[in-house]
Amino acid sequence: MTNKIQIDKTHESRLNQLDFDNIPLGTTFTDHMFICSFRNGKWQKSKIMPLGTLSTHPAAMAFHYGQAIFEGMKATIGKCGSPLLFRPSENAKRLNFSAKRLGMPEFPEKLFVEALKLLVSIDQKWIPKSKGSALYLRPFMYADEAFIGMRAATEYKFIIIASPAKPIYNKRIRLYAETKYIRAAHGGTGEAKAAGNYAAAILPTEKAKSKGFDQVLWLDSNNFRSIQEVGTMNIFFKINETIVTPPLDGAILAGITRMSTIELLRHKGYNVIERNISIDEILTTSENGLLEEAFGTGTAVGVAMIEEIGYKNHSIHISNNNPVGQMVLDTINKVRVGEIQDELNWMVKV
Amino acid sequence: MTNKIQIDKTHESRLNQLDFDNIPLGTTFTDHMFICSFRNGKWQKSKIMPLGTLSTHPAAMAFHYGQAIFEGMKATIGKCGSPLLFRPSENAKRLNFSAKRLGMPEFPEKLFVEALKLLVSIDQKWIPKSKGSALYLRPFMYADEAFIGMRAATEYKFIIIASPAKPIYNKRIRLYAETKYIRAAHGGTGEAKAAGNYAAAILPTEKAKSKGFDQVLWLDSNNFRSIQEVGTMNIFFKINETIVTPPLDGAILAGITRMSTIELLRHKGYNVIERNISIDEILTTSENGLLEEAFGTGTAVGVAMIEEIGYKNHSIHISNNNPVGQMVLDTINKVRVGEIQDELNWMVKV
Repeated sequence: MTNKIQIDKTHESRLNQLDFDNIPLGTTFTDHMFICSFRNGKWQKSKIMPLGTLSTHPAAMAFHYGQAIFEGMKATIGKCGSPLLFRPSENAKRLNFSAKRLGMPEFPEKLFVEALKLLVSIDQKWIPKSKGSALYLRPFMYADEAFIGMRAATEYKFIIIASPAKPIYNKRIRLYAETKYIRAAHGGTGEAKAAGNYAAAILPTEKAKSKGFDQVLWLDSNNFRSIQEVGTMNIFFKINETIVTPPLDGAILAGITRMSTIELLRHKGYNVIERNISIDEILTTSENGLLEEAFGTGTAVGVAMIEEIGYKNHSIHISNNNPVGQMVLDTINKVRVGEIQDELNWMVKV
Repeated sequence: MTNKIQIDKTHESRLNQLDFDNIPLGTTFTDHMFICSFRNGKWQKSKIMPLGTLSTHPAAMAFHYGQAIFEGMKATIGKCGSPLLFRPSENAKRLNFSAKRLGMPEFPEKLFVEALKLLVSIDQKWIPKSKGSALYLRPFMYADEAFIGMRAATEYKFIIIASPAKPIYNKRIRLYAETKYIRAAHGGTGEAKAAGNYAAAILPTEKAKSKGFDQVLWLDSNNFRSIQEVGTMNIFFKINETIVTPPLDGAILAGITRMSTIELLRHKGYNVIERNISIDEILTTSENGLLEEAFGTGTAVGVAMIEEIGYKNHSIHISNNNPVGQMVLDTINKVRVGEIQDELNWMVKV
């Protein structure tokens, strides 16, 4: 496939402007991007080119009707010195799941993975090597047809940009269980990685932060009792020796770190159950001592240990002993850089 | 305020390329656009300039996290020959309501109206004069900060573009009552004119169209019984001499045509009640002969008469006699062009 992607390399790398010991959050981008346009019913010739601005018509439909989806994943450097991707095919599948829900064209899975490999290969010097750091990859697709009117667009762009990133949380986090706003409801777009889901979450998240919390714990839209997910993470609890996480009911994002965590824990012999978990159960088990751990999982964060959940007038404190969460985080981080064996075949060489 | 807006007029109008008897749907834009950027915590100097593409960073947050809202309104030519706007202050207020829900900065209401007036004044030759036609105005705001990470953006663009438009529906329409997908739920963004709401609606709308319907009739997310709205319209029924429409419960868009319709009908002496309406009630009243009319209201369409509602295995047929809906449509269309007196003070001279 590689020879199908046109390559136009930059003459002036910006790499020497990056201080790897001090990577700014979310504002540094590598030298190149991958870009492919959908026109006349099909994906056109793709290319990797110097990162640059896009010429966008003000009537580009993504700005108005929100057909915009994305993926998030990480590239690291393996022991052998070559870059590794974490389960890129899963991102390709999820992108296409999102595309279908939003009435957008699917992007060929093979080309998705090939494009990632080629971009990471070209920009591999941008991959940070310090513990927990990685090159964050952002494949995304949006409608760029200039049209005023509500229907599926006929023109799209699929792009991959890359940004070196250090770990987000180095501390245990505090969650605010939201009882006014929702992230998603059954029948909506919660299971898709749709831009609009994040837009819905921004105000509640800012409000939670202003109260001193790190993220929102999302509850279901019907009666604000069932736990859905956390900010940009899925959530796991250890209750009375069993690991539980909410099932993918259509309103919850199917996290790839979530899936990997379940697989890893089962592989290690843990009992993992996907089932409905109410906030009341967390309150009760916290009071009777059966709530043993809580942690969030996501690409950006890996695993974040949860210290506290604020819910109405309750403050649910969780043990600071996180052997399961820490084992998952360490395993993911070590597998990513080839420090331990990749027993579940997650990593893909570039 | 006018002197605050910088004006940079085009040297080559494209107006002579437009055939007013044959206006393409949604793809024709006037010569100019209004643009204003939000940087460093405030709105910067604004200008009207030739319509052109926007230079957009691929990490522009609207593409990823969906902070994008819009308004829709129409300019017409009054009897006196000068352009008229339909209740522009209401659009300004709603834009800011949407902005707050999505964690975006509010745009000054006075400048919003002034910008519309100036843009319409400059591009007034683009206003179509045939019955039911108008210059459709599209104010919108999106996050254009280049940042990877989930938080409110710190940089935005507010833009107004304009597109001459003929009437959308010249026929009665058929609705498909959706029982799998939702448009919005309580606690979400349904009351905001958020891009993501439309993205959620595209696939279900395409599915409804493939079954031969024109639009989706949205039901509530909890049990798919309460009627919310229609495609890009609010909905009204006449049941046993009373006009009813669903109340603005937080999941329904507060249509300006909806508000105007209620005001007009009450002004004309009709009994209008905002209350919960279940699809079962529509089914029952249709069967017992009490369902007298059904129509949708919205900026793009004005008033669209509803012929049929498909719901599960039912086909609800509605009388083709629409005296109330037709009166509302005629009144709005005539007030817009100064053919009848503007008793409710809707129109604003440019």
